[in-house]
Amino acid sequence: MTRRILITNDDGVKSIGIGILTEIMRPYGQITVVAPFEPQSGMSAALTIGKPLRLTELKSEKNLKIYACTGTPADCVKMAMNKIFNNKAPDILVSGINHGANASVASLYSGTLGAAAEGTIYGIPSIGFSLISHDPKANFEAAIHFGKIIVDNFIKTPPKPDIYLNVNIPATTKEEIKGVKFSKQGRGQWINEFEERKDPYGSSYYWMTGEFLNIEPQNKLADHNLVSDNYISIVPHKIDTTDYQEITRLEELWKL
Amino acid sequence: MTRRILITNDDGVKSIGIGILTEIMRPYGQITVVAPFEPQSGMSAALTIGKPLRLTELKSEKNLKIYACTGTPADCVKMAMNKIFNNKAPDILVSGINHGANASVASLYSGTLGAAAEGTIYGIPSIGFSLISHDPKANFEAAIHFGKIIVDNFIKTPPKPDIYLNVNIPATTKEEIKGVKFSKQGRGQWINEFEERKDPYGSSYYWMTGEFLNIEPQNKLADHNLVSDNYISIVPHKIDTTDYQEITRLEELWKL
Repeated sequence: MTRRILITNDDGVKSIGIGILTEIMRPYGQITVVAPFEPQSGMSAALTIGKPLRLTELKSEKNLKIYACTGTPADCVKMAMNKIFNNKAPDILVSGINHGANASVASLYSGTLGAAAEGTIYGIPSIGFSLISHDPKANFEAAIHFGKIIVDNFIKTPPKPDIYLNVNIPATTKEEIKGVKFSKQGRGQWINEFEERKDPYGSSYYWMTGEFLNIEPQNKLADHNLVSDNYISIVPHKIDTTDYQEITRLEELWKL
Repeated sequence: MTRRILITNDDGVKSIGIGILTEIMRPYGQITVVAPFEPQSGMSAALTIGKPLRLTELKSEKNLKIYACTGTPADCVKMAMNKIFNNKAPDILVSGINHGANASVASLYSGTLGAAAEGTIYGIPSIGFSLISHDPKANFEAAIHFGKIIVDNFIKTPPKPDIYLNVNIPATTKEEIKGVKFSKQGRGQWINEFEERKDPYGSSYYWMTGEFLNIEPQNKLADHNLVSDNYISIVPHKIDTTDYQEITRLEELWKL
């Protein structure tokens, strides 16, 4: 039976990254792309509540259908499940290739990974790919070469239920890559996050900018350090974010 | 030294829930509210990228300052840190009281908890409160009574770094509450998620709706089951969502 593949992203249906990902995935089965009309970077697992969504078919070939949705990446996955796959989960979900890193705490804000999380909740083995560059002319060579190797493994040995994979790939040649490593979500945060400007009427407005502060620069298992050192990083993320040890600790200390 | 308290939410600065939370918090210190102008339910940890933000002061009393921000709940926390607290983290962050449950996978989509996660990344002890009802006339009695007890404990014994608390409270009287329990994020998903309509020109559009499917109705530690049974649930959630066991398992099985 033909493998049914759902592809989405957060940079929008017209982005370079989703086009490259679609080409990588073509040999693996029947492809359905459902991606946002407009860029939706930083949308996390946000859903559209309070305004309606549109779904538009852009291409319909035998093994490649492309739809655009007006919502967020997670909306796209929900729309695909409810209105295209009629609630029969596809075999895999592949999200990306994102233009820009989704390592460390960026994984929290990532629409690419919000979509992968959404697929995981439906029971679909899900994986997100990100390139460590926002440059539209960035080098996708390593992403294409190692992307296929990673997809081969992902299909043969998917993550356990309720876990999705987050792959970050340096924007370079395949020769420059030192290796592919499973790793953990690194610790970090953004600082100096807004640029203040004055509008023509003298009032302030703020653009989000920011610099990344690396909290654990020495940790060789942290994804953001690995990609800086030209490794490809793969982090398994959980849907269940409960800290079970903290339940026990606080149960003993709180007076309830 | 006076305790500095940041309050935010995802229902917007004018919601009933944030007004009640502000009154609960008044005895604990100096309050700064920074909340969205408009409702931002379902926004998860989304950030506003690609359009600028505005910040407006609505009230400035000695111990109560209120600001509205045009962005998401996570944007509000970033704006508070960068532009109001000048990067000196407040002592605690309290988010809510949300109108509607944030138990089970709803915690993934919740803007209330997106703000709490953002506070946690800055190192601020953070907690989110949600009421199990969307009705604007819902009963906040238990939320007010037990909210104070929970805040007392939270201030004395905050969660460990990189962990935030998610409190869900039934919309009822304090007598009806069977107890307060630490619990885990329950497993579930939404189904039948869109209502399709036709616009006046004959084209389809979709409203997000949906029914909750309870995957583990027998699990007495699951937060969504506890609140259905009139318990108050407190789940400790982690910022680091890495599954460390899965790293080891996939390292052995994948051919990399």
